[in-house]
Amino acid sequence: MKVAIIGCGVIGAGWAARFLLNGHDVSIFDTGPDAERRMREVLANARSSLPALYDRPLPSAGQLDFVGTIAEAVTDAYWVQESVPERLEVKRAIYAAIEPHLANGALLASSTSAIRPSKLQELCSHPERLIVAHPFNPVYLLPLVEVVGSELTPPALKARAAETLQSIGMHPLVLDRENDGFIGNRLQEAMWRETLWMIKEGVATTAQIDEAILYGFGLRCAQMGQFETYRLAGGEAGMRHFFAQFGPSLVEPLSHLMDVPDLDAALIDRIAEQSDAQSAGRSIRETERARDASLVAMIRSLKPQGVGAGGTIRAHEAHLPLRQDGSLPVTARRVIPSSWTDANGHMNEAHYLEIASNAADALTEGCGVTAEYIAAGRSHFTGETHVRYLAELHEGDEITVRTQVLYGMGKKTHLFHRLYGPSEELAATVEMMILHVDLATRAIREPLPNVAVALKNLEKAHAHLPRPDGAGAAIRDLYKMEAEHSVSRAV
Amino acid sequence: MKVAIIGCGVIGAGWAARFLLNGHDVSIFDTGPDAERRMREVLANARSSLPALYDRPLPSAGQLDFVGTIAEAVTDAYWVQESVPERLEVKRAIYAAIEPHLANGALLASSTSAIRPSKLQELCSHPERLIVAHPFNPVYLLPLVEVVGSELTPPALKARAAETLQSIGMHPLVLDRENDGFIGNRLQEAMWRETLWMIKEGVATTAQIDEAILYGFGLRCAQMGQFETYRLAGGEAGMRHFFAQFGPSLVEPLSHLMDVPDLDAALIDRIAEQSDAQSAGRSIRETERARDASLVAMIRSLKPQGVGAGGTIRAHEAHLPLRQDGSLPVTARRVIPSSWTDANGHMNEAHYLEIASNAADALTEGCGVTAEYIAAGRSHFTGETHVRYLAELHEGDEITVRTQVLYGMGKKTHLFHRLYGPSEELAATVEMMILHVDLATRAIREPLPNVAVALKNLEKAHAHLPRPDGAGAAIRDLYKMEAEHSVSRAV
Repeated sequence: MKVAIIGCGVIGAGWAARFLLNGHDVSIFDTGPDAERRMREVLANARSSLPALYDRPLPSAGQLDFVGTIAEAVTDAYWVQESVPERLEVKRAIYAAIEPHLANGALLASSTSAIRPSKLQELCSHPERLIVAHPFNPVYLLPLVEVVGSELTPPALKARAAETLQSIGMHPLVLDRENDGFIGNRLQEAMWRETLWMIKEGVATTAQIDEAILYGFGLRCAQMGQFETYRLAGGEAGMRHFFAQFGPSLVEPLSHLMDVPDLDAALIDRIAEQSDAQSAGRSIRETERARDASLVAMIRSLKPQGVGAGGTIRAHEAHLPLRQDGSLPVTARRVIPSSWTDANGHMNEAHYLEIASNAADALTEGCGVTAEYIAAGRSHFTGETHVRYLAELHEGDEITVRTQVLYGMGKKTHLFHRLYGPSEELAATVEMMILHVDLATRAIREPLPNVAVALKNLEKAHAHLPRPDGAGAAIRDLYKMEAEHSVSRAV
Repeated sequence: MKVAIIGCGVIGAGWAARFLLNGHDVSIFDTGPDAERRMREVLANARSSLPALYDRPLPSAGQLDFVGTIAEAVTDAYWVQESVPERLEVKRAIYAAIEPHLANGALLASSTSAIRPSKLQELCSHPERLIVAHPFNPVYLLPLVEVVGSELTPPALKARAAETLQSIGMHPLVLDRENDGFIGNRLQEAMWRETLWMIKEGVATTAQIDEAILYGFGLRCAQMGQFETYRLAGGEAGMRHFFAQFGPSLVEPLSHLMDVPDLDAALIDRIAEQSDAQSAGRSIRETERARDASLVAMIRSLKPQGVGAGGTIRAHEAHLPLRQDGSLPVTARRVIPSSWTDANGHMNEAHYLEIASNAADALTEGCGVTAEYIAAGRSHFTGETHVRYLAELHEGDEITVRTQVLYGMGKKTHLFHRLYGPSEELAATVEMMILHVDLATRAIREPLPNVAVALKNLEKAHAHLPRPDGAGAAIRDLYKMEAEHSVSRAV
């Protein structure tokens, strides 16, 4: 299946990358001096991000061609995506060059972010083949695409466009009516004008405004729209109560943007009815719990890079002590998020190892393998791991890991983690051989003396303890006997 | 440390939960009939979500008390949070009851979402102790809190407030100047008015508007503010170029909200300078890559619940085939996201097991353990797992899992997964014993006949293959010899 990309700026290149990585051949027309370089850069970004969203491989990538004429690009394409500057005279010239070569049944889609399709259709000799498909940057990652037609647009064309867009992993939002700016950009423009006023007034800087977005309501916006959010603010009584409680604030001078429709009974009725239909009978509490689970999962996902709220949690966490008790070091203690549970209704097996991995990091960090030590070129890699699942763990359970050092001699350290559930029952054991390496050569190498001594000291301190039940065991041992009595609560 | 919560609606209860779970004793005054029930519900939500953000335990929760008088609540509290309705006469009465009991050095913070602190201070006999601390719902999860004072507010008080808020895991955004509505709500109000117009005009429904937010720019807003986003849209030339390219669209009639400041040289200069300072010399490409990594991590985090963009990916993924080749079933194939890598610059050990867990699910699903089979009450739990790490894997690598069934008899299935890197090198083996269970009793139980037959058939089909190298091995085997030659590229 061939697609033509006419105009290869940030948006055109994003479209090209998305189509390519979903298996389409893509033919690009853009005579700008930077077009090919930009395409390469955008494609590199897309290749290293889009496939990573999936737990399945995308189709083999299609073929990418830069061509010298619009005719070449458009011939045999079933989808032509126009992403040229937002000036009608430019679009007119481009459409005039496209239309003679547009295959029967092919579709001409414009990326315009503001112009009504009826105005664009006036530029065409076959207006019924043009549709607006307005994406959001980065096109290869964000799913939204606004699909807009005019009175002239056959409903079947909208449906076909939506189907194609879904097949490349997008979320087509098909509007029933055209308007200037569609939905997303009208909302963003409204915010944008308000930010310009804030800067003008000196109320806030660009950085402060961005913080107000990404640490606050911006987090909500990725998992719930504004109506559903305000429905929750209204409490059990829903949208009508929200208006009763907050409606008046809409006419107070919070904003420079004061033109607001009369909040009459008809408008309140319409919103309340649509909002009821949208929430489909879910209770406020259910919706809140779903919101919270999403917020936790998202904020956790931002922790590794320390972005936005993820950075806030990391900074806070650095001040939280890991309380020690008992004879073995407590190397991890944490509460299980709902996103760690699976179809069986308990914590998924992989997170047992994730926690044990964190525990090993905490133990070696305590022995001197700090961020600075790692940055200077040495670290531990794991060579081998054996997990025995002994009890189920559930969302909200606090889990504690205690780690015994069986062997701590230079290059090799043999750890035995015991994972305890909320009532101190043994939920799993994780036996782990970690190897000290040189990060430049990736080869096994002696640790620096302070680390070697610290690990050895732990081994000595634990030497009086009995060898743990299950250490050194292999799966074949279990394999040869009936398992019911020994592993009655595996995970 | 004691905190007083005056007014326990959704916001007050959210504050109470956040303080409590961060170790503070909390004394609540709210005589409303629903206050205690709401507090219990909000606290239940907070308990099952806030601690799950952390990889460390929060401090032991403080003590919660509902008290009958403001005096009782406020006495000995070092922080008093007022969250009563936004009417000056109500706040006046509340402040009059609070102030006589406010300890020396204690701070009176208002949750007002719109009223300037100077107006609230006019209601106080000690105006210099009042400050605005405006949070966002849910207060126990969203880090943002706008901290606003007036001319009367000592800078040290703002600093002290920010320190306390940080200590309970929040992101205080300290404004230099007061204004009506602060930042976050001015932006939300601007959007909100625009949505009301859309509904009024019949351009879109509440559900469509919410989709336009959460599948599109809302995703960006959780990890990057509007200025930084638009800076990227401007390309390498930064903010000035953005205005050159997009500035005019601000005066087109996209919106009903038309009052826009003159985009004169002074305003452009101010924004460009602030934006330069904010981006701190990071290149556009660096910023784009960071953005993409965050978007991938966030969208992936929304997959388990199928929320927003996470649902889009899941729906798309369901149509992606797992291409089979070779004699063993391909049970997983995927690209490694950057969020799966760790401080050693390679895929973290836990994700090897995550992929193997997915592979086991795919294999058993192919044998009849489908979502419907699980919903009907039977599934597999993992009893034991042995991982040998043989080669490093990196961001962007495609990984393929082939699974051999060593034993597939009724209750017990013995799997041997081989994980291959992008050049088909063996990156790890994951040996796994899975046990078929009854989900009601959580006990081991025979599978239904179709599943039993399908697993047995796989065992038979693989019976001619040699027993895999490493199957049935224990860590002790490795432990007794020098490891360099056999595990030179462990992870």
